[in-house]
Amino acid sequence: MQGILISIEGPDGAGKTTQISLLKQYLEQKGFSCILTREPGGTKISEKIRHLILDKENSKMGAVTEMLLYSAARAQLVHEVIRPALEEGKVIICDRYVDSSAVYQGIARNLGVDTVYEVNEYAIQGIWPDLTIHLDLEAEEGIRRKKNQTELDRMELETMDFHKKVCEGYRTLAKRNPDRIKTINAMLSVEEIHEAIKKQLEFVIKNR
Amino acid sequence: MQGILISIEGPDGAGKTTQISLLKQYLEQKGFSCILTREPGGTKISEKIRHLILDKENSKMGAVTEMLLYSAARAQLVHEVIRPALEEGKVIICDRYVDSSAVYQGIARNLGVDTVYEVNEYAIQGIWPDLTIHLDLEAEEGIRRKKNQTELDRMELETMDFHKKVCEGYRTLAKRNPDRIKTINAMLSVEEIHEAIKKQLEFVIKNR
Repeated sequence: MQGILISIEGPDGAGKTTQISLLKQYLEQKGFSCILTREPGGTKISEKIRHLILDKENSKMGAVTEMLLYSAARAQLVHEVIRPALEEGKVIICDRYVDSSAVYQGIARNLGVDTVYEVNEYAIQGIWPDLTIHLDLEAEEGIRRKKNQTELDRMELETMDFHKKVCEGYRTLAKRNPDRIKTINAMLSVEEIHEAIKKQLEFVIKNR
Repeated sequence: MQGILISIEGPDGAGKTTQISLLKQYLEQKGFSCILTREPGGTKISEKIRHLILDKENSKMGAVTEMLLYSAARAQLVHEVIRPALEEGKVIICDRYVDSSAVYQGIARNLGVDTVYEVNEYAIQGIWPDLTIHLDLEAEEGIRRKKNQTELDRMELETMDFHKKVCEGYRTLAKRNPDRIKTINAMLSVEEIHEAIKKQLEFVIKNR
């Protein structure tokens, strides 16, 4: 694979979208051909799955169903977008990827991180991120920021206890994968976070 | 678990629907409380997933995505319908269940039977059928029968080579699981097939 896969992770409200847009500008200025994807979604089929997952009507959804739907959306994204783009040497920035499932379904929904990674091995077919940026934030702050922006979806409407498990889950995961997952304090300014991400990315590019 | 889970398997056109309806009548006459389910589907969420899977528009769907979507629909069916019904001592007759994935995605789409069973272990949470009836039919005959009935969906529109792999796949699977999967020739008359299914079922009930 010639390209680079970067995933941006963290709780809702951590500032992923803002940072992704800055990162894309930066990479394009450096001459990289850059693709943005979001999860769940990013292909026609995955966006339909996204609608199913996030629709507040589907409140009876079991945890295993949820995990399998996220994995299905991801499998299609890898199949249609990520693998072809990597083969063409592009940089792909994913707004959430496999670690979101590990945290949300594996830890916060108690299915177990190993279970989630096992199922997702089929979905991603060996395509792990070269770098994962973890924007670290307290749950209360994330939800406070989010509430000011949009109507909350089925996941965002979860209990504060759930969101706390998500925040803690990301920290646990980052400790388990220190080489790949880099934690940045999401309370820093937009510009400071952008600088920190650039530093991590330059290190990855230099070491290829 | 107090109830009984029966799955009816076989290629399209094998007569599953007809036999399920006869079997339900027979069981209710014997005093059993009986539930029918179909796959993919059987719950509000699973029916939405069904629509996604079978929609001819979604022709770009990858094999892994397809497997995960079938598994997700099944997980929700087990969660909402099958497990509660088994706990209440009911008889559940499934129009397709985990073996359909093993055959269609595992064998015909080449993902491997073990891969499919591994992912599905999470979806079904240990709930395997007490009895699986395999209605055995040649692919050409199945599609010939189906074409006369309805407009074909995304799966039914597959190549004849695919349908042949499905028919062979069921035979392979039945040989691998002779205690659970019982093969009946779907070229027999409706009444003969019904009698053969009754015989298999009585054996299961007697040995509980």
